[in-house]
Amino acid sequence: MGCSVVERIRTDGDKGVRKAIPPCCLKAMGTCPSEAKCHETVVAGWFSEGRIWALCEAHSLKVERILYRGKSDYQEILVFESSGYGKVLALDGIVQLTEKDECAYQEMITHLPLCSIPSPKNVLVIGGGDGAVLREISRHLSVEVIDICEIDQMVIDVCRKFFPNLSVGFEDPRVQLHVADAVDFLKKAPAGKYDAIIVDSSDPIGPAQELVKKSFFEIAAMSLRPGGVLCNQAESMWLHTHLIQDMLSTCCETFKGSVHFAWTSVPTYPSGTIGFLLCSTEGPPVNFLDPVNPIEKQEGALKFRRELRFYNSEMHRAAFALPSFLKKELSTVYNSQLRYCSSSVYVFVFSPPHLISVLDSTARQRLVWAFG
Amino acid sequence: MGCSVVERIRTDGDKGVRKAIPPCCLKAMGTCPSEAKCHETVVAGWFSEGRIWALCEAHSLKVERILYRGKSDYQEILVFESSGYGKVLALDGIVQLTEKDECAYQEMITHLPLCSIPSPKNVLVIGGGDGAVLREISRHLSVEVIDICEIDQMVIDVCRKFFPNLSVGFEDPRVQLHVADAVDFLKKAPAGKYDAIIVDSSDPIGPAQELVKKSFFEIAAMSLRPGGVLCNQAESMWLHTHLIQDMLSTCCETFKGSVHFAWTSVPTYPSGTIGFLLCSTEGPPVNFLDPVNPIEKQEGALKFRRELRFYNSEMHRAAFALPSFLKKELSTVYNSQLRYCSSSVYVFVFSPPHLISVLDSTARQRLVWAFG
Repeated sequence: MGCSVVERIRTDGDKGVRKAIPPCCLKAMGTCPSEAKCHETVVAGWFSEGRIWALCEAHSLKVERILYRGKSDYQEILVFESSGYGKVLALDGIVQLTEKDECAYQEMITHLPLCSIPSPKNVLVIGGGDGAVLREISRHLSVEVIDICEIDQMVIDVCRKFFPNLSVGFEDPRVQLHVADAVDFLKKAPAGKYDAIIVDSSDPIGPAQELVKKSFFEIAAMSLRPGGVLCNQAESMWLHTHLIQDMLSTCCETFKGSVHFAWTSVPTYPSGTIGFLLCSTEGPPVNFLDPVNPIEKQEGALKFRRELRFYNSEMHRAAFALPSFLKKELSTVYNSQLRYCSSSVYVFVFSPPHLISVLDSTARQRLVWAFG
Repeated sequence: MGCSVVERIRTDGDKGVRKAIPPCCLKAMGTCPSEAKCHETVVAGWFSEGRIWALCEAHSLKVERILYRGKSDYQEILVFESSGYGKVLALDGIVQLTEKDECAYQEMITHLPLCSIPSPKNVLVIGGGDGAVLREISRHLSVEVIDICEIDQMVIDVCRKFFPNLSVGFEDPRVQLHVADAVDFLKKAPAGKYDAIIVDSSDPIGPAQELVKKSFFEIAAMSLRPGGVLCNQAESMWLHTHLIQDMLSTCCETFKGSVHFAWTSVPTYPSGTIGFLLCSTEGPPVNFLDPVNPIEKQEGALKFRRELRFYNSEMHRAAFALPSFLKKELSTVYNSQLRYCSSSVYVFVFSPPHLISVLDSTARQRLVWAFG
């Protein structure tokens, strides 16, 4: 089930392959930023995500008043007060965050990786100009350096004005802001510098389109220490399975440790869910599924600056439970990736019914998977 | 955060109390079915949930063609082919199911209760005229009797015509259909007859408004055997916390076994999530959090009639992981319910940090809760 496939062809910049994209994925894979302009998104007091309207569905928010409307070198920026979700930030006509549900996205994208490794010290945020991921990283007292590489200074400035509860993250003295292109920044970063990289990007169109390519993941992996972790925003399991499969495939090729998909509930994102791809480099094994560094055991973390509203260790574990349809779709990727692990020793564990766990010796979590 | 509270007053039929309802909950608590008519919901080729439009947000689906439009004695019925979600059933202007995501709701509301007890034999479905919960119950070979009490024959007939993959559930010879009011039906049911009752109702307006009242839960509990289970649709944790608190409070008063809230992702329901209240009667303890009767171990269950698309034992366990904000809001209800357990012996277990587990001797799962 899903939108019927249309004959829209894209060229994949990395692989040179051409394939049809279902319209349900066009929203995330659009290549022309001009398709998404915010100036037509507020009509008769309602904001609607424009590109989705042209396809299958739309989510609309009632607008109390528009607070800011501008255009940076990279994207159109819109801030409005909504009737039900507090203040809303939209970039190129797509909701990035609302005050009501930002806690779900920001807390999960931050603590899923940081609670999966012991004592993270050097952390890099890519994107995240609103500051909320920084706010969440600040809960971790072990962290010594928080680099943030955001391409758009205007996003930072607008959020400082309208979202002080998010941009408070910039006030942490450990934060070092780099207004730059992420790929350029990573090329100059010392190899193995970071314990964790969090990619808090907008959808992979416009300025963020480089951040789902293999070349990006390769330099990100180079910047991580052995057993370091990357967490990437990974769209909706209901709408963008093709994109998730592509990202998963690329990450399995690039990251020789663990690679896992997780998801959570964010009402104002399409389909009400958002996914995360969690990857680790070869080195000390990382078990993303069970936090080795639980937030509840970290001094003061639950209430630093404000109480945690969404994340806890139970939600961490639950995020990796996948619906059967998604397990099936992703298992094809994991299966095809077995050839990339040729240097590893495999242990195949057959458990009835329909369960095969595949462990490899260098990264025991990497291929643990249920085929059903 | 949330919609600002308006001075709309309701009278609670059961308790005689009057209190203001936040507009975010009005959708679920509306008392006038005439507010929700489907004839104005399809405009310019788009279906939108009408009552939500008048409030804070709307979810809209592109309509390929309208397949059926009618009015029963109880509600307006609309079936249309959507562009992205297959065929859609709407009652009184509210989406009940779509072909794309019905698997999530139907599989979870069925298997959460049935996999929590060993060998269920007698099962009652209230509502569920589309037949899909019956389809899911059929996977359980231990079940001998499947009673279904649906008030609206027209819903059954329309679904038989337009949703054969759902109404196939009626073809199971164990199914006995009762077209009747659920309260009347339960009043005549033998005490202790059922192992499980599944309340697959529409929102608590119109014909379903009786199904969230204390009087309903009391007769439902009477119809369950000791240690029997009830699973009730319980709205959105993001939008209807007041309603969930009310239902939880009522169920804690009524069911002397376990009472738990669970949730899952359903894109076409408001906020993209739906909740479930799981309750058990006094008797053999029921641990909803870990399925004692896992679907994967039941002969042929995974592929009976069609493959399970959403539910599995990992999703079962994950459904009970609650965001911190919800734990906090529901803990006030659990706290206030301690007084109802005066006949039990309590064991308080204090675990750092911010965790208090309260076990009562008659139902060890009932009050296990994390305050944080």
